[in-house]
Amino acid sequence: MIKKELTPAQLGNVTIDDSFWAPRIEINRERTIPYEYKMFKATGRMDSLKLGWEPGKEPVPHFFWDSDIYKWIEAASYSLTTHPDSQLDSLIDGLVGLITKAQQPDGYLNTYYTVVEPGKRWTNLRDRHELYCAGHLLEAAVAHFQATGKRTLLDVACCYADYIDTLFGSKPGKKPGYPGHEEIELALIKLYQVTGERRYATLSKFFVDERGQQPHYYDREATERGEDPTKFWAGTYEYNQSHKPVREQNEAVGHAVRAMYLYSGMADVAAEFGDEQLRTACDRLWNNLTSKRMYITGGIGPSRYNEGFTEDYDLPNETAYAETCAAVGLVFWAHRMLQFECDGHYADVMERALYNGALSGVSLDGEKFFYGNPLTSLGNHHRQEWFECACCPPNIARLIASLGKYVYSQSETDAIVHLYVGGSASLHVAGQTVGLRMDTRYPWDGKVIIAVEPGTPASFGLKLRIPAWCREFSLRVNGMEAKSLQPKHGYLRIEREWKAGDCIELSLSMPIELVRAHPEVREDIGCVAIQRGPLVYCLEQVDNKVPLHRIVLPEDTKLKARFEQDLLDGVVVIHDDAFVVDDSDWDAQLYRVAKEQRKCFKISAIPYYAWDNRESGKMRVWTRTDT
Amino acid sequence: MIKKELTPAQLGNVTIDDSFWAPRIEINRERTIPYEYKMFKATGRMDSLKLGWEPGKEPVPHFFWDSDIYKWIEAASYSLTTHPDSQLDSLIDGLVGLITKAQQPDGYLNTYYTVVEPGKRWTNLRDRHELYCAGHLLEAAVAHFQATGKRTLLDVACCYADYIDTLFGSKPGKKPGYPGHEEIELALIKLYQVTGERRYATLSKFFVDERGQQPHYYDREATERGEDPTKFWAGTYEYNQSHKPVREQNEAVGHAVRAMYLYSGMADVAAEFGDEQLRTACDRLWNNLTSKRMYITGGIGPSRYNEGFTEDYDLPNETAYAETCAAVGLVFWAHRMLQFECDGHYADVMERALYNGALSGVSLDGEKFFYGNPLTSLGNHHRQEWFECACCPPNIARLIASLGKYVYSQSETDAIVHLYVGGSASLHVAGQTVGLRMDTRYPWDGKVIIAVEPGTPASFGLKLRIPAWCREFSLRVNGMEAKSLQPKHGYLRIEREWKAGDCIELSLSMPIELVRAHPEVREDIGCVAIQRGPLVYCLEQVDNKVPLHRIVLPEDTKLKARFEQDLLDGVVVIHDDAFVVDDSDWDAQLYRVAKEQRKCFKISAIPYYAWDNRESGKMRVWTRTDT
Repeated sequence: MIKKELTPAQLGNVTIDDSFWAPRIEINRERTIPYEYKMFKATGRMDSLKLGWEPGKEPVPHFFWDSDIYKWIEAASYSLTTHPDSQLDSLIDGLVGLITKAQQPDGYLNTYYTVVEPGKRWTNLRDRHELYCAGHLLEAAVAHFQATGKRTLLDVACCYADYIDTLFGSKPGKKPGYPGHEEIELALIKLYQVTGERRYATLSKFFVDERGQQPHYYDREATERGEDPTKFWAGTYEYNQSHKPVREQNEAVGHAVRAMYLYSGMADVAAEFGDEQLRTACDRLWNNLTSKRMYITGGIGPSRYNEGFTEDYDLPNETAYAETCAAVGLVFWAHRMLQFECDGHYADVMERALYNGALSGVSLDGEKFFYGNPLTSLGNHHRQEWFECACCPPNIARLIASLGKYVYSQSETDAIVHLYVGGSASLHVAGQTVGLRMDTRYPWDGKVIIAVEPGTPASFGLKLRIPAWCREFSLRVNGMEAKSLQPKHGYLRIEREWKAGDCIELSLSMPIELVRAHPEVREDIGCVAIQRGPLVYCLEQVDNKVPLHRIVLPEDTKLKARFEQDLLDGVVVIHDDAFVVDDSDWDAQLYRVAKEQRKCFKISAIPYYAWDNRESGKMRVWTRTDT
Repeated sequence: MIKKELTPAQLGNVTIDDSFWAPRIEINRERTIPYEYKMFKATGRMDSLKLGWEPGKEPVPHFFWDSDIYKWIEAASYSLTTHPDSQLDSLIDGLVGLITKAQQPDGYLNTYYTVVEPGKRWTNLRDRHELYCAGHLLEAAVAHFQATGKRTLLDVACCYADYIDTLFGSKPGKKPGYPGHEEIELALIKLYQVTGERRYATLSKFFVDERGQQPHYYDREATERGEDPTKFWAGTYEYNQSHKPVREQNEAVGHAVRAMYLYSGMADVAAEFGDEQLRTACDRLWNNLTSKRMYITGGIGPSRYNEGFTEDYDLPNETAYAETCAAVGLVFWAHRMLQFECDGHYADVMERALYNGALSGVSLDGEKFFYGNPLTSLGNHHRQEWFECACCPPNIARLIASLGKYVYSQSETDAIVHLYVGGSASLHVAGQTVGLRMDTRYPWDGKVIIAVEPGTPASFGLKLRIPAWCREFSLRVNGMEAKSLQPKHGYLRIEREWKAGDCIELSLSMPIELVRAHPEVREDIGCVAIQRGPLVYCLEQVDNKVPLHRIVLPEDTKLKARFEQDLLDGVVVIHDDAFVVDDSDWDAQLYRVAKEQRKCFKISAIPYYAWDNRESGKMRVWTRTDT
C-alpha cells in the first residue's frame, strides 16, 4: 500500500533567519497581513459576517467573500506560529467571534446564502462556492488551532463539516454532489489529520471520486434550477475538471487554481487511503502539466478566458494569465507529491513556482499585487493595490507565512532538506529530535553550510537536494571532501552516525544559463530565458532603454552576475554585452529587403519576481537569440 | 489649385483577358455574384425591401441590411458593364423596383427605420448606419446608370440625396451631423460627377469638415437620446474618426473600414474643391498608415476589438483582424491618391492590398469568404460560407468586377499603366482615343508586352510603373533596348510620337525575396516574409508537414520558383531547402540548456491570397530567419 514517505517539518519547528526570505516574511507579517485586513474591512467583507445585510444595501456580500477572510485567518495563524503577536491574536479572535455567531443552528455557515439568497443553499454547486468557502474555513481552523491551541474556530469548522457530511454522499437521500471550485477535498484531509475523525477523510474521498461521474451532477442540478445544462457558461466541464472521473484524467485542464486544489486533494486522498490508482492519476497529470503546460516561471494557466489551461505547449507570453493563486497552488501540489516520493523533480517544480511565478505576485513593499503574471509586458501590466476578486493577496500571504513547512521533511530514517533557506529546524528522525542549522546566501549564492545537532549520536540519512539546474557541486562533511556521493532522484544522501557539531558544506555551482523551451512552444522558439540558480530573470525597460523585443542574446554571450545591495531590496543583477537591432537606416519604410543591423548593447536583467517594483514599463523573460 | 492629375480609365473601356484576373472575374460573375444574391434572399434582405415586417416577425430587418443589397447592385452593375447579361440585368431591375417602392414620399429610404423603428430617423448617426446605407445606394445608382444608362435607381438616389441635403448642413434649422460610418462622402462626389449637381459635392464637403467639430454632434445627439455621451460603447470617438476635425488628424485610428472610406472621401473632396490643406491631411494619414500600421499583405486594422487600428508598429500576426473590407477600402483610397499624383508609392500599396489582403478575402471557387485575414493561423481560421454581418462578400465582389478601373489612368499628356493585367483599353490622351493592348503572365512573370494603337500618330507619354519590389528591369521600344530611361516617382515615361503598331517590351525582374519588417514591429523581428513580385507568400500546413513555427529560413536560402498549373488554379510555388528545428533529443523536458538542433526541410510556399482553399491547417506568412 502506498503512502507518503515523508512528513513535512512542523511550521513551529522551523525558523528562518536568512537574508532573502526572512525580510519577505517580515514584510508579509508587518505590511501585507495588516494591509489585507484593512482592505477586507474597507470592502465590507468583515461586516458581511455580521449578517446584517438587507436587500438594497451596498455592498452586497459576494458569494465567495467568506473565503477571503478564512484565507487571511490562515495566513495570520501561520504568522502567529512563528512570531507570536497578541494584537494579531486578538484580531483573529474578533473574526472568529463573528464567524461563530454567523454559523446557523444546523451548522451551515455561508454569509451570502444566509442573507442574500436564503433558501437557495446547495442549489448551484457548479458555480457558487459554498463548498470552496467551507474548505477555506477548515484550513483556517486547522491553522488557527495549530498556532494557538484554541478550539474556537476548529469547533465551528467541525460543526460545519459534520453538517456537510450529513448532506453529501452516495447513500440514498444524500446529494451526490461535489464542489465546482475544488478546495474542500484537501481541507477535509487536514481536518481529519488534526481531529482524527476518519469520516472527514472519507467525505473528501467521496468528493474526489464522485467528480465527473455520470449521470453528471451538474446536469441534474442545472435542470433542477430550470436551466439548460448544455448552456453552461464555461462551455465545458473541463473548466472545473468534472469532464470525466478524476482517475481517468490525463491532462491538466480548465481553471488552473481549481485544478491545483483538486490535484492536491487527490494526492492527499491517495496517501490517506493508500490508493495507488489515484496516485497514478496524479502522476499522469503532473507529467502533463510540468512537461507541456507550465511556464518557465512555474506560472500555469495561459488563458484569461478560462483562467486556465488550453493545450499542450500553448504558452503565450504577452497574454499569459498565470494567476498568482495558480502558482501558489502548484507549490501546494508539488509539496504533496514530494512527500510521496523524495524526488527532485517535484522539488524542482516547487522551487521554480515559489521563487518565480508565486513570489512575483506580491510587491517588495508587500502592499501591491499581481493577479496575472505575464512573461512579456508591453508596459500596461502593473501591480494593483486591490482586486474586486481578491483571492490572490491572501493566498500569497499564507504561502509566505508558512514557508518553513516547505523547507524540510522527515522520515523514520532521513532528515531531508528540499530548499536552501537559512535558519534552523527540529526534525523527528531515527526516534529522536534532530536539530539542523542552515546558513546560506541562497538564492544569490550556492554555498550552504548545515550544522547537524542530534540530541545524542545517531545513525540516519541526511538528504540534500541537488537541484536540476545545478550541474556541478561539491560536498564536505566535517571539512573532508566527499567525492564519491552521487545524487539519486535529485538528492544526495549522507548516511552516517551523526553527532553534535557535525558540519556539512555543500557548494552548488550557480552559473548564468540561457535556457530554451521545447521547440513546440511556438512563442519561445528562437528565444532564450536567463536563469541563475532557481531564479528566472527578466529584462525591464527601466534598466534597458531600448525596445526590449529588439535585444538579441547570442547563445555564447558571456554574462556576468553582480549583487546589488541597494537595488530591489538586494538582488543579483545579470548584465553585460548583448546586441540590439538598429533601425537608424530604415527611414520611413515598413518592409524592405536588407540585412538586419545590430549594435552592441549592455543588458541588465533582474529576477522576474522583482519586476514592476520601480517605474513602470515593458518587460520580457524570453529574449531572442541567434541560432 | 490642386486637382487630380489623372483620371482612371472608364471601366467599359477596359477588357481583361489574362490568365490570372480574367478567370477570377469570371468566377466572380458566374459564382460569387449569383451566390451572394441567393444568400441575401435567403437571409431575408430582399424581402425586407418590401417593408412588410411587423413586430414579432422573424427575421427583423437589420439597420444596415440595405447596404448589402446596394453593394451587390453595384457589383452586378460593374459586371454588366464588361459582360452584358440580360438575366442579371432583370434581377437588378427587380431589386430597383423594390427599392423604388420602399422610398418614402419625402425621399427617405431605409427599411430598418421605416418598419422597425419608425419615428426614430436620424436620432443616432453615431451608431446606426442611415447615411452609410444612403452612401451605398448612391454608389450603386451611379454604377447602375453607367452600366445600363437607366435612370431608375439614379433617380431614387438623387431624390434621397436631395432630401438628405435639406436636412444636413450648417445653416440654421439644419442638423450639423455626419455619419458614424463614413461612406456617403465619397458617394456624393460620385453622384455629383455623374449628375453635375454641385450641391452633392458641397454636402460631401460639409460632412467631411463638420466631422469632429466642437461642440461634438455625437455628444449632443446622445444627450437628446437620454444617454450619457461619455458612456459611448466604443470608448473613444477615434473609433469613427470624429475625435478631432479631419484636417487636424495625423494618424490612422479607429475602425479601419470607416477610416478608409473617410480618407477616400477626403481625397475626393480635396480634388473637387482644390483643397490643398485637405490633401495634406490625406498625405499625413497615408504616411502614418503605410509606414507604421499596415501588414505586408496590405491588410489593415490589427485589432478585433475595434475592428481597427491600435498603435504604430502593432501588427500582431495570429490575432490580426485585417478585415477584407478594410483592404478593399485601402485599394479605393490608394487609387484616389494615385489620381492626384502619379507616384508609385500609391500604386505599390494599391497593388499590395489588391493581390494579397483583399484577394485573400474570397475563395478560389468564389463562394467562401474571409472576414478577417490573419498572417498566422493556428489552424482555426477558415473561409466561411456566410457571415451574420455580410459586408465583406459584396465588397470584394464589387472590387473584382471593377478591376479594369484600377489598371490604367489617362491625362492630357499621358497614358498610364499602373497594374500589369493582360487585356486592352481605350484611353483618352492628347485629344484622341489611344488603344493599348497588354500581354503578360503577371504576377507569375515580369514580362509585359504592350502594343500602342493611337487612331492617328500622336505625341504623348506612355507611363509604365516600375514597382518598388522591382530592382532591375529592361525596356525595348519596337525591339530597341531603351537603356537611358530611368523611372521617376516609380514610373518610366516614354515620350515619342506613337503610331499604330508600336510595341513596348518591359521585363521586370521578379526574384524571390526575403523581406523584413521594420525592427519596431515586435511580432516580426527575427523573421522574414517571402515575396515575389507583388505577391506575398505563406507556408501552409498541407504543403509543409512540420510545425510551421519551427521552420527556419536563413537569409541566404536559395529558393526556387515553379509554376504549377494544377495547384490552386495555377500558382507559382516557392520551394527548396530550409531548416526545421528538431525535437528528437528533447524527451519530456520543457526547458533545458542546449543548442538548438535543426534538420534540413524542403519548404513549399504558396501565394497568401490562395491559402485555406485545400484541407484546413496552420498557416504562416512570417518565418523565422537566422540573423
